[in-house]
Amino acid sequence: PLSPLSFLYRTALVFPEHTAMIHGQTRRSWSETAQRCSRLASALTDRGIRRGDTVAVMAPNIPELFEAHFGVPMTGAVLNALNIRLDSASLAYILDHGEAKVLLTDTEFAPVIQEALHQCKGNPLVVDIDDSEGPGGERLGSILYEEFLAEGDPDYGANFPSDEWDAISLNYTSGTTGDPKGVVYHHRGAYLNSLSNLIGWDMGHHPVYLWTLPMFHCNGWCFPWTITMLGGTHVCLRKVTAKNIYNSVAEHHVTHLCGAPIVMNMISNAPKEEQRELPHRVEFMTAAAPPPPPVIAQMEEAGFNVTHVYGLTEVYGPAVVCE
Amino acid sequence: PLSPLSFLYRTALVFPEHTAMIHGQTRRSWSETAQRCSRLASALTDRGIRRGDTVAVMAPNIPELFEAHFGVPMTGAVLNALNIRLDSASLAYILDHGEAKVLLTDTEFAPVIQEALHQCKGNPLVVDIDDSEGPGGERLGSILYEEFLAEGDPDYGANFPSDEWDAISLNYTSGTTGDPKGVVYHHRGAYLNSLSNLIGWDMGHHPVYLWTLPMFHCNGWCFPWTITMLGGTHVCLRKVTAKNIYNSVAEHHVTHLCGAPIVMNMISNAPKEEQRELPHRVEFMTAAAPPPPPVIAQMEEAGFNVTHVYGLTEVYGPAVVCE
Repeated sequence: PLSPLSFLYRTALVFPEHTAMIHGQTRRSWSETAQRCSRLASALTDRGIRRGDTVAVMAPNIPELFEAHFGVPMTGAVLNALNIRLDSASLAYILDHGEAKVLLTDTEFAPVIQEALHQCKGNPLVVDIDDSEGPGGERLGSILYEEFLAEGDPDYGANFPSDEWDAISLNYTSGTTGDPKGVVYHHRGAYLNSLSNLIGWDMGHHPVYLWTLPMFHCNGWCFPWTITMLGGTHVCLRKVTAKNIYNSVAEHHVTHLCGAPIVMNMISNAPKEEQRELPHRVEFMTAAAPPPPPVIAQMEEAGFNVTHVYGLTEVYGPAVVCE
Repeated sequence: PLSPLSFLYRTALVFPEHTAMIHGQTRRSWSETAQRCSRLASALTDRGIRRGDTVAVMAPNIPELFEAHFGVPMTGAVLNALNIRLDSASLAYILDHGEAKVLLTDTEFAPVIQEALHQCKGNPLVVDIDDSEGPGGERLGSILYEEFLAEGDPDYGANFPSDEWDAISLNYTSGTTGDPKGVVYHHRGAYLNSLSNLIGWDMGHHPVYLWTLPMFHCNGWCFPWTITMLGGTHVCLRKVTAKNIYNSVAEHHVTHLCGAPIVMNMISNAPKEEQRELPHRVEFMTAAAPPPPPVIAQMEEAGFNVTHVYGLTEVYGPAVVCE
């Protein structure tokens, strides 16, 4: 069956020592990352998570949310990455509508999640993520993410869905015309769109990808899976600021990043003292309306090549590319 | 349904004026090439070719064999590209075993094909290909390929198989242990292996691909489809000689080519007067046993990067890549 899970198994096997993940001072290889995904899958299975169950995550672009993109579907379950900008009513609606059985939640969002948990009818198992790069916050559940992983088996093994049309994730649209609407992605579609990213964008082997685009947005346009397929490096980013972007690109030799037009404005209008000399030209993929020529010119001057795409939640992210 | 036919439809739409085909003095755009494939499909349909029928082709790496990679499956039929090195007995066996209803045959091979047609039980419609770059030869059928195309509709339209598991091609292995054995490729597998070529080999947009690897060998490792997907240029080559390779690379700015180890020997042992200065580094993909380090060193000195793969007819060509 076609499934992005195959990307992780292959990359961990072929490039075990390559850097998979950079987050603050943390560096993890593909071997370590695959083991953490296996531990997550194993711990979820031990708690009764089965095929078709929903596991929700409330987190910015940190390793835990990336790990959930593999660890959750490895159990046969469905990943529901929550939009961290939503209010408690919307979150409560989504938790109930998606029937989340487990919620992994970054402690920064404890206040809004606590409210949402009071408002919703369901009673998911809550696992708190205490991110080393985060501001800290209250714990809502009975177990920390790292303790949860410690329960799991690092050799949980390679699992595939029995049917490639099985659900891999559930993404809610913003609900501009009423309640949020859930879009179900299947393994086959996620696999194919991961490959499609490679046709539209020249990525080569071992890209270094900066996580400016939210992973909760169409599963980061499938890039958690695409970058893994290419044996690349994921550079996490808790807060998207011009300074963080320039520093990450300069320090980690980032080759690719994605973002809304507002991120381009951030980059090209950054104060001089926040800008850094870039080690090479950087590929930037943006969506939404075509960027105006002056914005593209500014980006190119700052050292970025811009690729313009268009898509929507219903089609796994980018569906059209400006060739 | 997954099918490599989608690559032609998309590329003809997005890059109609890009060069699709170079063969001797002939240049054709993607728009022209797509129309020729449509004409072939339409003419075959008019002669009664239907889903599951077999169309055989006996030709070296010329545009007609490329066109058959799209024109034949566009009708729902199955392409059987014949190994031009086989003797008449093997060819007769394959024509009968594959139940070929139509045979497109380059006039250079008229002698062996005439014998094969005498020996076989079937009575396929024979269409002669009179290639401008060929040595000429006897006509065996009642119609020339160009006359056949002229009968067809250039706007035959975009067809897809009703089932992605439908056969797209039939390739016979060399029969070292008895009669040749037929391997059936399906649209889904051909689509996926076309994409897989892109994961193992950095190709970028618009590669210029030199046809040194026979298209009759595992459908040229699926590169007729991969290069089309990328809006690239196919540089045909009737005869694989060092001189032809160096001239093609230098004149057409070839970026990629594939070949058996013997082609590497040809390139690196070419007499000085046949070598040409290359416009840039060229990517060379080879299969079979790992090339010995001196051969790789010689190739690199000559201006080629070598990528080593391994595969077999049963898996659409390359299945393993040396990463």
